[in-house]
Amino acid sequence: MRTRNKPWAKDRLAQYPQYAIASPEECRGKWASIFGNDHPIHIEVGTGKGSFITGMAKAHPDINYIGIELSESVIVTALDRIIEAELPNVKVMNVDANDLEQFFAKSEVERVYLNFSDPWPKTRHEKRRLTFKSFLKIYENILRDNGEIHFKTDNQGLFEYSLTSLSQYGMTLLYVSLDLHKSGYEGNIMTEYEKKFSEKGSRIYRLEAKYNA
Amino acid sequence: MRTRNKPWAKDRLAQYPQYAIASPEECRGKWASIFGNDHPIHIEVGTGKGSFITGMAKAHPDINYIGIELSESVIVTALDRIIEAELPNVKVMNVDANDLEQFFAKSEVERVYLNFSDPWPKTRHEKRRLTFKSFLKIYENILRDNGEIHFKTDNQGLFEYSLTSLSQYGMTLLYVSLDLHKSGYEGNIMTEYEKKFSEKGSRIYRLEAKYNA
Repeated sequence: MRTRNKPWAKDRLAQYPQYAIASPEECRGKWASIFGNDHPIHIEVGTGKGSFITGMAKAHPDINYIGIELSESVIVTALDRIIEAELPNVKVMNVDANDLEQFFAKSEVERVYLNFSDPWPKTRHEKRRLTFKSFLKIYENILRDNGEIHFKTDNQGLFEYSLTSLSQYGMTLLYVSLDLHKSGYEGNIMTEYEKKFSEKGSRIYRLEAKYNA
Repeated sequence: MRTRNKPWAKDRLAQYPQYAIASPEECRGKWASIFGNDHPIHIEVGTGKGSFITGMAKAHPDINYIGIELSESVIVTALDRIIEAELPNVKVMNVDANDLEQFFAKSEVERVYLNFSDPWPKTRHEKRRLTFKSFLKIYENILRDNGEIHFKTDNQGLFEYSLTSLSQYGMTLLYVSLDLHKSGYEGNIMTEYEKKFSEKGSRIYRLEAKYNA
């Protein structure tokens, strides 16, 4: 997602430590006490401007949500949404998906959301795709047994790749939609990107898959 | 596939026992001697008018093909194609897919093709879909270890269903295309149905999956 650089973003994130986690390494194994309850934790890897994670947190007050985003200049918009909504069950972290095991202990997370992840279409960039096997290993190491990945994208190539990558990793597909917005699926919360591209007529693909204990 | 009834079909099939197997139960465990070689055996379940199986047999002389079709009035057209092509490596059988284990011993088959199978869209007809778990069990019982299913369809619902059904059965997806004719996939042999519907702009979906030994 392209966005202009916001040099003030870091300061703004630091002003709201209740929403933007300042020292994520210190949270590892302690998320229940940070949220003040033992509700399930769902994370979104690549949370962007936070429309999805904020919408989910409003719709599901009994789930705790954490959005991960590498770009400061993008995640600061997610922070603004959370501040405005005054939601107790959603936080964001300005961290790299490669480092997730530093922030979550095994079994601390129940579900991983991946939404409109960068497709990295060139074969030589396969390792950067968030459904590449090394990322699936990282998610497995923080998820509980039978933890799930819920993934949606408008990118046909990334979806084809992800179906085979998850399957070859040993995961089981629970649900597949090849045209989400015509599927009758209820409770879909759209991302900014999804609103824009589905209005242009792009199909949205979606899957749910689980790790096998 | 709808077709007019052909009361003479049974007689015509009986006239060509070298192509239309007359006593399939007697072939169980003996396919290598029937073909006169030990080439791998690939079967197509629901072979229709035989355009695919005949095209594959021409393209791959080192594979033996057997097309299974329940309708006499349809399979008789497949027979005519085989007679015309004079191919030694393709045969057809007018039998029910439910009975495959009566015609093939364990490990006798290397690959199962399913092409444009009836989608049976109503949930109460799920058991009739050729990718329902009871059929996956039948195929497993005649396939060799790591045997494969290659499946294509223009029916989005059946493809979504089949991805999850195969995965939940424990199979591994090797390949998925969500738009076969634009995928760059080489060597595709079209069925009659595929020619007709792809010309109308329908997307063709395709997967390859393997059983795990």
